[in-house]
Amino acid sequence: MSRRAAYDRLERLFARLSHVEQALGMLHWDMATMMPPGGAASRAEQLATLKALHHEMLTGREVRDLIEAAEGEDLDPWQRANLREIRRDWLHASAVPARLVEDLSRACSASEMIWRKARAEADFAAVAGPLAEVLRLTREVAAIKSQALGIAPYDALLDQYEPGGRAAAIDAIFDDLGAFLPGFLQKVLERQTPAPAGPRGPFPVERQKALGLRMMEVLGFEFEHGRLDVSQHPFCGGTPDDLRITTRYDEQDFMSSLMGVLHETGHALYERGLPAAWRHQPVGRARGMSLHESQSLLMEMQACRSREFLSFAAPVMAETFETGGGAGWDAEILYAANVRVDPGYIRIEADEVTYPAHVILRYRLEKALVAGDLQVADIPAAWNGQLRELLGLVPPDDRQGCLQDIHWFDGAIGYFPTYTLGAMTAAQLFDAAARAVPEMGAAIAAGDFRPLLSWLRAEVHGRASSLTIDELLTHATGRPLDAAVFKDHLRRRYLS
Amino acid sequence: MSRRAAYDRLERLFARLSHVEQALGMLHWDMATMMPPGGAASRAEQLATLKALHHEMLTGREVRDLIEAAEGEDLDPWQRANLREIRRDWLHASAVPARLVEDLSRACSASEMIWRKARAEADFAAVAGPLAEVLRLTREVAAIKSQALGIAPYDALLDQYEPGGRAAAIDAIFDDLGAFLPGFLQKVLERQTPAPAGPRGPFPVERQKALGLRMMEVLGFEFEHGRLDVSQHPFCGGTPDDLRITTRYDEQDFMSSLMGVLHETGHALYERGLPAAWRHQPVGRARGMSLHESQSLLMEMQACRSREFLSFAAPVMAETFETGGGAGWDAEILYAANVRVDPGYIRIEADEVTYPAHVILRYRLEKALVAGDLQVADIPAAWNGQLRELLGLVPPDDRQGCLQDIHWFDGAIGYFPTYTLGAMTAAQLFDAAARAVPEMGAAIAAGDFRPLLSWLRAEVHGRASSLTIDELLTHATGRPLDAAVFKDHLRRRYLS
Repeated sequence: MSRRAAYDRLERLFARLSHVEQALGMLHWDMATMMPPGGAASRAEQLATLKALHHEMLTGREVRDLIEAAEGEDLDPWQRANLREIRRDWLHASAVPARLVEDLSRACSASEMIWRKARAEADFAAVAGPLAEVLRLTREVAAIKSQALGIAPYDALLDQYEPGGRAAAIDAIFDDLGAFLPGFLQKVLERQTPAPAGPRGPFPVERQKALGLRMMEVLGFEFEHGRLDVSQHPFCGGTPDDLRITTRYDEQDFMSSLMGVLHETGHALYERGLPAAWRHQPVGRARGMSLHESQSLLMEMQACRSREFLSFAAPVMAETFETGGGAGWDAEILYAANVRVDPGYIRIEADEVTYPAHVILRYRLEKALVAGDLQVADIPAAWNGQLRELLGLVPPDDRQGCLQDIHWFDGAIGYFPTYTLGAMTAAQLFDAAARAVPEMGAAIAAGDFRPLLSWLRAEVHGRASSLTIDELLTHATGRPLDAAVFKDHLRRRYLS
Repeated sequence: MSRRAAYDRLERLFARLSHVEQALGMLHWDMATMMPPGGAASRAEQLATLKALHHEMLTGREVRDLIEAAEGEDLDPWQRANLREIRRDWLHASAVPARLVEDLSRACSASEMIWRKARAEADFAAVAGPLAEVLRLTREVAAIKSQALGIAPYDALLDQYEPGGRAAAIDAIFDDLGAFLPGFLQKVLERQTPAPAGPRGPFPVERQKALGLRMMEVLGFEFEHGRLDVSQHPFCGGTPDDLRITTRYDEQDFMSSLMGVLHETGHALYERGLPAAWRHQPVGRARGMSLHESQSLLMEMQACRSREFLSFAAPVMAETFETGGGAGWDAEILYAANVRVDPGYIRIEADEVTYPAHVILRYRLEKALVAGDLQVADIPAAWNGQLRELLGLVPPDDRQGCLQDIHWFDGAIGYFPTYTLGAMTAAQLFDAAARAVPEMGAAIAAGDFRPLLSWLRAEVHGRASSLTIDELLTHATGRPLDAAVFKDHLRRRYLS
């Protein structure tokens, strides 16, 4: 017997689990990008079966004993951190019976497919039943995990996406931000002058795609290890060696697709930068969803919606669309469009000042749904009431209201707050990178992302899940998450 | 306990296995159509892990006992046939240790990826090592299964693709055909006049694709349940509810892609026509590879390379390529091109008269490889020697020789004879359909495949694996496979 016999067996088991997870990732990507509608029912069975097998393997009789035995073995720091993450995975999984895992997977697949149609037809009633079933099973999971982990039901869901995340801490941050934003937004809107005329479409899809591919390359995306496709809701899927990002195109507005592509590229660069030596172990995974979102928002909001990037990008855009340049392609005009604040209905189209309002809305509603204080049938009214309160707007229909996001319909409840935590983390990391790498801004203005990417590889990507979020942020920026940096960023960008 | 307790448990297990098989099918499709090269290593791990899990489930301790118990239960004829197929699956799987299954899967993935490059570069040496490893592991499988099933090693491999297929029977058929073909070929070539000038390219890929999609629809393909993509080696993959067919395009030759699409559509229609009630059980699967190939060749060779189909298709083709018609789009000229006999190097481009020579070559070589009478390093020389003997040709390089087919490199050894068995079966089924449904020919000439498809649904597709191949053919055509019908077809088409 080696000195690490139990630990080594766990590593082998978790490598196998990782291969199943990766297979699931590819099947999910295919479902959103390639699958014809008639494949939905059998795909749901495939996903449910693989998830159930995964669950059975992860909760097998011997896993608890192996974890206990490995605790006493001679492990290096990464192995020790891996064991911590293994225990975390096991705790989450072993709390929930296989039957429930399988039912929830099927319910999510069914609900997601119906949501696609319901969204297109602005017909919330069509998907209310399937969503209620997802919620019912999710609340069952929350109750069981709450008991097993000794935390509140909503926290038990949140913890799946944000290790160690707790609603009490988020409440404090969101209350602070909620108090800051309305006054700030008003000031910004008062100062904002009419937008100068930007470039005019139509922008053919093929050229938009060419521009997206070119900019992905500028940021450091490796096409040997990934591709760009189309889906209704853009995402970054696949695996670190085979990254599948998606976008959607609007012929009248190339910037929204491009910024989406840069956003997903940020996610992809994080996955790609995870340490290859730990590729198939829990410690080698990304450190939770707020950090993941910080990587996409750092690229999109911090690095690319900047004067530096747009001064590099403007002539490339003009060339791609073969307009021969002209005033609309002026970097300053593109910048003005990119930092324009315009309260609207759609979260993924929101500017960075009003985006947190969309997240706070969803956070409040999903907490109420999990607590049983809000019923599915009442979501549209609650949604519209919240949006009126936060942004003074009421969506004209549910397509532009509570049907716009895939998350709840796909079972991702407890996920939304990580977007705004991610935005704050992005500001803090970008600020630290700018201090640590003084040439970074000039490099971005020259279309060279290597200085920024090198810093991120060393400080964030390469650490994977070896540290807690607070530890990682303290290493990289000198302190845990601090809302002040985000607020400073907003003040600098929108009021100076 | 129900009267079918053991059988019911087997059905549940095999439904689960089917979901894993379907997931594997999708991952294979993705690997051939979408995956970037850098995803190969992790994909190989995903496939190997799922195959190993499948193997563990199928060979679990209780399966043998359940099969024995189910034999004594009160089953209807389809359940009885399902139990027979379950036993067959179990016999094949339980013979082979999980370690070997996993090693072979990995070796095939590695070899296939290297083959893609080696083929492009006509560099057999680059893939000889990986292929030797595939062969070594395949021979290990053959030896083990030979012992377990009590049949010869090559038969044990063949039986995986062609249930009940035996080399002795194939030798007899191929000897008969081998004796018939050379003289026949000579007569055909002597009578053949120079080809009239057909339509001139280039034929833009987008229009070729549009034509392919249109003709798929004419044949009865349901796009709600499938799609058409591009891969290096065309195939029909996916699942009965989500069929993924592929093609490749040559701008100078639209007919080769179109006929490939019609061929794969034949495969897809078979899968789609399998009885939905038995979707996830062994008895609900296609009845072996020669019958599968009969369905593709029936559509391509019998139905579509005919005067009837081409008289319908010619104006559609002319319209698609917007040439305004002209002499090149005359149905009789297109027909002459489609029944042209032209001995060549490439199997998938071969006409139906010389195609069997390509198959006989591969069949002889793979039998020798399995027997240990031929070494991997000697494949190029053996290949070229055989082709000279059979068709009087020597390939200019291995790209047009022994590197042209994916099969061996992907581990499909014992598969090739099913192509020519399929061609003979196709002739026999089409002949029977024409007798049973007199209006079929006129309908095809009007672009209406419903009479033919209805007959196939009833006589072939809907029977799935409920009968043996001989039983099914006897039901549908009045007798088991009979080479005379194929030879008659060749005489009628090429010498009358």
